[in-house]
Amino acid sequence: MAACWMAHCGVKTRIVDKRNAKIFCGQADGLQCRSLEIFDSLGFGDRAWKEANHMIEICMWNPGPDGVIRRSDRIPDTIVGLSRFQQIVIHQGRVERFFLDNIKKYSKDTIHVERGVLPESLEIDKFKVEDESAYPVTVKLRHLSEEEAAPEQQATGSKASDGLFRSNLVYEDDEDDLIQKSKSRAGTAEVVHAKYVIGCDGARSWTRRALGFELQGEASDFIWGVLDIIPITDFPDIRMRCAIHSAEHGSLMVIPRENKLVRLYIQLKEVTPDASGRADRSKITPEVIFSAAQKILSPYKLDYEYCDWWTAYQIGQRVGTSFDAHSRVFLAGDAVHTHSPKAGQGMNVSMQDTFNLGWKVALAAKGIAKRSILSTYQSERQSVAQDLIDFDHRFSRLFSGRPAKDVMDAEGVNMDEFKAAFLKGNLFASGLIVNYGPNSLVAKAGEDDGSNSATVVSADVFAKTQALATGLPVGMRFNSFKVINQADARPWHFQEKLKSNGQFRVVLFAGNILSATQKKRVEKFCEALGAPANFLHAATPAGSPLDSVIDVLTIHSAKRTETDLLKDFPEILHPFDPHTGWDYDRVFVDDASYHEGFGDAYKNYGVDKERGCVVAVRPDQYVGWVGDVEDFDGLQKYFEGCLVLSPKTELPLR
Amino acid sequence: MAACWMAHCGVKTRIVDKRNAKIFCGQADGLQCRSLEIFDSLGFGDRAWKEANHMIEICMWNPGPDGVIRRSDRIPDTIVGLSRFQQIVIHQGRVERFFLDNIKKYSKDTIHVERGVLPESLEIDKFKVEDESAYPVTVKLRHLSEEEAAPEQQATGSKASDGLFRSNLVYEDDEDDLIQKSKSRAGTAEVVHAKYVIGCDGARSWTRRALGFELQGEASDFIWGVLDIIPITDFPDIRMRCAIHSAEHGSLMVIPRENKLVRLYIQLKEVTPDASGRADRSKITPEVIFSAAQKILSPYKLDYEYCDWWTAYQIGQRVGTSFDAHSRVFLAGDAVHTHSPKAGQGMNVSMQDTFNLGWKVALAAKGIAKRSILSTYQSERQSVAQDLIDFDHRFSRLFSGRPAKDVMDAEGVNMDEFKAAFLKGNLFASGLIVNYGPNSLVAKAGEDDGSNSATVVSADVFAKTQALATGLPVGMRFNSFKVINQADARPWHFQEKLKSNGQFRVVLFAGNILSATQKKRVEKFCEALGAPANFLHAATPAGSPLDSVIDVLTIHSAKRTETDLLKDFPEILHPFDPHTGWDYDRVFVDDASYHEGFGDAYKNYGVDKERGCVVAVRPDQYVGWVGDVEDFDGLQKYFEGCLVLSPKTELPLR
Repeated sequence: MAACWMAHCGVKTRIVDKRNAKIFCGQADGLQCRSLEIFDSLGFGDRAWKEANHMIEICMWNPGPDGVIRRSDRIPDTIVGLSRFQQIVIHQGRVERFFLDNIKKYSKDTIHVERGVLPESLEIDKFKVEDESAYPVTVKLRHLSEEEAAPEQQATGSKASDGLFRSNLVYEDDEDDLIQKSKSRAGTAEVVHAKYVIGCDGARSWTRRALGFELQGEASDFIWGVLDIIPITDFPDIRMRCAIHSAEHGSLMVIPRENKLVRLYIQLKEVTPDASGRADRSKITPEVIFSAAQKILSPYKLDYEYCDWWTAYQIGQRVGTSFDAHSRVFLAGDAVHTHSPKAGQGMNVSMQDTFNLGWKVALAAKGIAKRSILSTYQSERQSVAQDLIDFDHRFSRLFSGRPAKDVMDAEGVNMDEFKAAFLKGNLFASGLIVNYGPNSLVAKAGEDDGSNSATVVSADVFAKTQALATGLPVGMRFNSFKVINQADARPWHFQEKLKSNGQFRVVLFAGNILSATQKKRVEKFCEALGAPANFLHAATPAGSPLDSVIDVLTIHSAKRTETDLLKDFPEILHPFDPHTGWDYDRVFVDDASYHEGFGDAYKNYGVDKERGCVVAVRPDQYVGWVGDVEDFDGLQKYFEGCLVLSPKTELPLR
Repeated sequence: MAACWMAHCGVKTRIVDKRNAKIFCGQADGLQCRSLEIFDSLGFGDRAWKEANHMIEICMWNPGPDGVIRRSDRIPDTIVGLSRFQQIVIHQGRVERFFLDNIKKYSKDTIHVERGVLPESLEIDKFKVEDESAYPVTVKLRHLSEEEAAPEQQATGSKASDGLFRSNLVYEDDEDDLIQKSKSRAGTAEVVHAKYVIGCDGARSWTRRALGFELQGEASDFIWGVLDIIPITDFPDIRMRCAIHSAEHGSLMVIPRENKLVRLYIQLKEVTPDASGRADRSKITPEVIFSAAQKILSPYKLDYEYCDWWTAYQIGQRVGTSFDAHSRVFLAGDAVHTHSPKAGQGMNVSMQDTFNLGWKVALAAKGIAKRSILSTYQSERQSVAQDLIDFDHRFSRLFSGRPAKDVMDAEGVNMDEFKAAFLKGNLFASGLIVNYGPNSLVAKAGEDDGSNSATVVSADVFAKTQALATGLPVGMRFNSFKVINQADARPWHFQEKLKSNGQFRVVLFAGNILSATQKKRVEKFCEALGAPANFLHAATPAGSPLDSVIDVLTIHSAKRTETDLLKDFPEILHPFDPHTGWDYDRVFVDDASYHEGFGDAYKNYGVDKERGCVVAVRPDQYVGWVGDVEDFDGLQKYFEGCLVLSPKTELPLR
């Protein structure tokens, strides 16, 4: 994900991976709504959507009065109306493939994953970290031979002995082993001088250890196994996502997958940690896991011929003490948060870490954004990680507990409480309720993170401006509704126009452009926007097109057929190019479509249809600022807080 | 398209093309709803949908009382509710790319376009044409050198001299020229013995001439030019599809395209045919065409810097006298129908020709279908071609005529009449009103085409059975509504389950499966279906899976959550496989979805929710037969009429 941003933003990048192959099966598999919105903004949401299994319904199974499991509830897997996407499931190997193809396309084949490359040392020159032109990070890399880098990956379908590869039950440090090997052989070494380094190297992160940072938290006694199989069963809900609590044998989660596969998360009640808190790894085999599943599912029969992958893990929750060093070296994903995999959060939250970080590093590296925005990575993502860990802590204990026999059974888990936690968890798991606090990129009231107190506003003022767009809370992602292109009447989900290319956006809700009063307000705003001294020109590097840093998009609320792009809208909203004519792809209207209904965008965004408002959107689709059409100064101040501005005296050609 | 069917059906195939490169720009560009449904059934509808420009609205422009053009009407480009797709525009080169990729994938890289290969002779051994094991067609091929095969294709953006390449204004026979060249050089020759040959070789078809067949029809005096440009203009509807009649300077059609391109079809009033009926080609240049466009669009300004492609054509309508020889050699596309390109029908109807033909040839070649079905190609497609030619004749005269000044102006074209013709034409152009007559594949009343009178039923009987599914007219394509998978609650457009893989389908509308009476009816039907002597087993080659020729799909109308796949439906509707368990992808329910609304399929298909019915669907998604759940004999008779049946005495393993 981080490299993907660099490819889209044109930043020189290297990716090194000690393994010599990508993932082919197993590992993470769930893609949440927000991840799909992100994939779509990068250009490959459709590939995931087409190939994946779509999870639609969750069925809850609990013991009835007779102690036999029965379906107690059905709920939609994705909360209705939350996003234009729903949760889907596809194995991590395909997700890696989508990224690799996308990086190749956008980097014009210049960024590749260099496999079999191991970092040996990392040093930061503390005296140069604030020097914008410096390369203060030095990394020594060693290139491994093919054999050295071979991962112990389980071959598809085989009953390989090491299904525990990459499980947190594997205590042997295979990385140290790799280093040992590489030292004993004639690998070539090289020294890389970098502006920035991002360590996305997993729960046992080499980068984290090199920085001297730690994961804090604890393991539980709960041990779970995972099987990816094609099930042969009479269990009626095997193609639904199921949460099953058996009376005595533990719990099980069913995740229906692509290609007839089903993933089973199975509580292993008969495997318990020893005095040191660690489970005896030798006792965990696919047979043990499968036998536990059969007991939980009884009286339904379960069998399989084909197993794609298996593993086991001990539930634990840990979060990193620090996410970056000097805003030059960053940690992301499992390197700063580990937890149980059942809620499908590991891959999603990890990708969202670097989706938050990537554009910040890219724009800082290019000199477009101030370096001070880099500190918002830790302030924004550490609280997400903490929320995740807290959620997982509560949820996994409810899931691993024995169901209560009756209201007097205080030790058991109350199934109503479990359902309530599940519903709440589902909302959390969608990734859509993330709400970043005030900082240099999020202009709202509250305690700022120190990155730039200038953009933090008083609670009174903020309440007033936020009221201009109640459906676009500052700090949350820009929700999507359908709007119509003014020039060609084509409906678009507005989010489709917020591609991940590094651009900030100013979204002008122009209101009723046919009213003379409103038109004057809009014209005045556009006049300010066009002034060479203001942020739009000042943020644009000399000689670059005016939309290279900030893109201006308009949504108006008059009738489409009564409005004319060329007559009714100031030129800066649909700029003229002497080579290709007017720009027909920037002005949209909140009106009904012929074939795809009416998005009712103004109502859904909570914006007044007559007077509109202005919204600043970050490159990662998060709302950064909301203000009135007259509040150009507020908008100017927002961009002054995060971008490097050099006012121009002349209007650049487009 | 023909080769695509062979790839999907696993038939050994060669494609030869005298040109040494595919199309890169220009040529056909419109994709109609039916073509998109077909693309989707082949697996690449999404690629076209994503890349293309979507045409949403048609604006009509005519002279006002002052003689100046003004917008008189807006209508949706695609009739609302007709299909799940709408008309889109993308250049022919991309469409060819989608096909090439799809053929490569499905043929496992065994079918390629062999370019620079010219046919020299074609002979049919008349005594062997009915011999199923024979290869009665002999074709001699010559391999050209690279220079010989180079097409005179206009390079993108350049102002090449020969924009008229492949235009019907090019009278020089460049093919004869190629043959001449190939004779003078040492090209290698080979002789191919084929079961079937399909000539998709254009308006000047070598195959057609080799068979001695002709195109009949006539040319008009109307000459039109075509420009693919990035327009620089103040014309407000340049991103809409527009039909523009100027008072004195002729007519123009605007087709907004992908990548900022716009295609203009421009009437050339100042270029007229000579006494022989042919236009003077030397007078037609991009400048002449562009100048005509400027006059028509006046007082709006039009300019361009970039031209992607240009051509000109003389409107004429011709249709082939015969579409096949001995059901062994077939002609398709421009080889049997030519007309004006403005309605975007050429590429669409041509692809639909071979979409009709391909599976018939494939199944006959594999011995699955009777050879007698091959005669339905001509009977089905010749009438479509005739309808197209008639439509184009009327439409192009209305479009090329001068608009009437007032009601007394009898020579002018009445603009209300034009609009009515346009609306009707739009319905025709969608490709969705094609209704094949009775024959061995279409069991309905009427005069049969001689291929198999056994399947033709009396008008009385037919009216009764058709009434069982009023929304699924026999002879028309199976319309698509959303249904829900019983096992996993996922919504699907039902057409997504009718993939183009050569399978016939039996769609069982099982009705209210929770009613005991109805369940008995369904069980009786399934019992008959399971009998080894009946069509399902008899059509399946020994040792093949039971769904290899005919796929059985179910849509029931009870509540999803009250129904259970394993308990409520006979096994044959969701067959058990000892290796992979039950089949979860064949039983669907007409119920509401969480996220994608309610398809209301029974109502839309006009099927009784209680009692249901049975529908046989051809491999090309056309409805072949409709009958009651009790009418197993009628269904049996339908398949006896078109498939090679060899009753089995034993049930084959799945």
